[in-house]
Amino acid sequence: MKNVYLDNQSCTRPDERVVEAMLPFIGESYGNPQSIHSWGAAAKEAIDGARAKTASFLNAAPREIIFTSCGSEANNLAVKGAAAAYEGTGKHIVVSAIEHFSVLHAARRLAKSGFDITVVGVDKFGTVMFEELERAVRPDTILVSIQHANTEVGTIQPVKKLREIVRAKNSKTIFHTDAVASAGMIPVNIKDMGVDMLTLAASQFHGPKGAAALYVSKNVRLIPQIDGGAQEEGRRGGTENVAAIVGMGKACEIASAEMNSYCRQIAALRNTLVEGVLSKIPHVYLNGHPHERLPGNANFSVEFIEGEGMLLFLDQKGIAASSGSACTSKALKLSHVLDAMKTDVAIAQGSLLFSLSKYNTADDIAYVLAELPAIVERLRAMSPTYAHFIKTGERMKAGPGTDYGHHDH
Amino acid sequence: MKNVYLDNQSCTRPDERVVEAMLPFIGESYGNPQSIHSWGAAAKEAIDGARAKTASFLNAAPREIIFTSCGSEANNLAVKGAAAAYEGTGKHIVVSAIEHFSVLHAARRLAKSGFDITVVGVDKFGTVMFEELERAVRPDTILVSIQHANTEVGTIQPVKKLREIVRAKNSKTIFHTDAVASAGMIPVNIKDMGVDMLTLAASQFHGPKGAAALYVSKNVRLIPQIDGGAQEEGRRGGTENVAAIVGMGKACEIASAEMNSYCRQIAALRNTLVEGVLSKIPHVYLNGHPHERLPGNANFSVEFIEGEGMLLFLDQKGIAASSGSACTSKALKLSHVLDAMKTDVAIAQGSLLFSLSKYNTADDIAYVLAELPAIVERLRAMSPTYAHFIKTGERMKAGPGTDYGHHDH
Repeated sequence: MKNVYLDNQSCTRPDERVVEAMLPFIGESYGNPQSIHSWGAAAKEAIDGARAKTASFLNAAPREIIFTSCGSEANNLAVKGAAAAYEGTGKHIVVSAIEHFSVLHAARRLAKSGFDITVVGVDKFGTVMFEELERAVRPDTILVSIQHANTEVGTIQPVKKLREIVRAKNSKTIFHTDAVASAGMIPVNIKDMGVDMLTLAASQFHGPKGAAALYVSKNVRLIPQIDGGAQEEGRRGGTENVAAIVGMGKACEIASAEMNSYCRQIAALRNTLVEGVLSKIPHVYLNGHPHERLPGNANFSVEFIEGEGMLLFLDQKGIAASSGSACTSKALKLSHVLDAMKTDVAIAQGSLLFSLSKYNTADDIAYVLAELPAIVERLRAMSPTYAHFIKTGERMKAGPGTDYGHHDH
Repeated sequence: MKNVYLDNQSCTRPDERVVEAMLPFIGESYGNPQSIHSWGAAAKEAIDGARAKTASFLNAAPREIIFTSCGSEANNLAVKGAAAAYEGTGKHIVVSAIEHFSVLHAARRLAKSGFDITVVGVDKFGTVMFEELERAVRPDTILVSIQHANTEVGTIQPVKKLREIVRAKNSKTIFHTDAVASAGMIPVNIKDMGVDMLTLAASQFHGPKGAAALYVSKNVRLIPQIDGGAQEEGRRGGTENVAAIVGMGKACEIASAEMNSYCRQIAALRNTLVEGVLSKIPHVYLNGHPHERLPGNANFSVEFIEGEGMLLFLDQKGIAASSGSACTSKALKLSHVLDAMKTDVAIAQGSLLFSLSKYNTADDIAYVLAELPAIVERLRAMSPTYAHFIKTGERMKAGPGTDYGHHDH
């Protein structure tokens, strides 16, 4: 059976050169970077090298990089760390409605301890509404956190423009962007974007799980969220995951050098996939922005059926896809992103996300285009809403009580 | 040149079987455990297996294990997570003076937001003083955090007894123990100890960096410190580091089966080392408890010289040792542990920690015993305090202003 992995927004295949760079540090180079001996020095040197590569990838200085264990930890550090550092200045934070849950839930946690959170909406393409953002920023707004690109629908935010809107209203407000979905796919340059903090995760661009980073401008203070030793200059305690950090450095180096060329290839394959799906299957819609979107993202709504059914049948054919964010997929909730974009509930239920990487081939796409129509047909044959539509030409409305995943822990 | 690694309290060499178990998940098995497809299912199954092994190692239930990225994260989650969950009940927390900084600094962070922290002292062997602990616990004490064994001096606390003292004063107080130094060296059984929370880190017992765990009794509530997706049943967001978690499971399995036998061997080598050092070098003292100590721990104070000098000369001979906690070694501060044990400052400055593992051999110990006396002699030849002692027979007192590392970030 074929193996076609099209769930690269959940996790990417580590590059072989990344794995090779990591191997010594999983085995015999096991020193603790904080130790004063040759084993420690070798580990320290490896981390310094990875920090330089990660910083260079973002056009930042090495000391502005804090390594964390995952993108969620970095997002929590950005939001909660800045909130704790600047609460004397103000207790108002602005986020967009389509942030990853590690930003949204971190903000909600702060709301319980007296912070005021404003959630800014997006238009039907998933772009943050400029006027809403402008209205949201106040004299006591200490932080705005708006993602660079959306993991699910792929919409790329005009971060530079958003940053200017925020600065015009309050020059002291810190701007954080979650670049987990975009890093390695489109250029991520902190100076061009004008951001003060930025999150990226190695596992999203062919690096390992277990390493992520928060860029923090030297002008921004943060209260650590993991207190402990002197690691990361006192900003993040805990023994460094040397192997994963080394892998992340290598992944940054590879992406810096090769992204432009592999992303052209990815976009071409994605376009073939989108055109093929829309032309072969009726009642299918492309979610997200028509052109301001990640090159690997193809997020569809397939009417009259549910995303999970498609995922299971696709899996039986050796095709990995997703119906939304991996962090919540098991919860079988409707996407808060599609909700914020005011996608019709009946349509949002049939969301299907293919996310491509540099490892996908034209054969992969041809295979999906050969298999998907029959899967959709088979599921629609079992669908009462489809039967109703065929019989009457009318669409049934989704019932009340739909849960969009706005739950607390 | 020989390579003799005796800094196992900083980090241990991963077992080859651990590395082998991890390799597939660093490379081709790259699925996200939260994804609904075969790649995801394989990763999920691997994590479930590791969770079962980790739970079994502690005599806990799998659902009581929360995987984190490092011991410091787990300690922060225990202290801050319980503080946030139970602050309605009380705002008093008790810790010992010789906790790892991830506990001490987490408690100090809470003190800034209105929590009252009592630090309980230890005797000259590093054992928590029973009466002080009993006096410390109050009706509003929500949490006591006392380590199982000390990373630096190796002293093992009578946790079961300490737990009883706490329960007798306040039956609702939660008891957390940091078992990072003890797990894999002595039995760690949550039921025997009677603890509600326990921290362990894979890198301390021949597992990888990047994986640790917090055992949390099903009766204890915690507020997550990394908000985000549904991972770890909503108690710790962020993509799971599958490879490291798998490695941790394997390390737990190996320690469960083999610890009894390898620890006898380690203790025998350690005893040879201690007897050899004390008999070959004058003016050397053994820090810590005479018998209630970790089998691999040999913490000396070598009078008239400083720890760092010995570490550098030992390193030149291919011997890795430490002068205290790896997390603070680069800061060149005196040990807060030796300070709490009221070790004389002049003596604490010359602390030298050898920590053994199952990979050490009799040859390693013989080599250290052959090399160390000359190193000490060489350093003492350059030491003004030693010259003073030889000339007058009197010890100089350390000057004021000694920094014990009680710094804030």
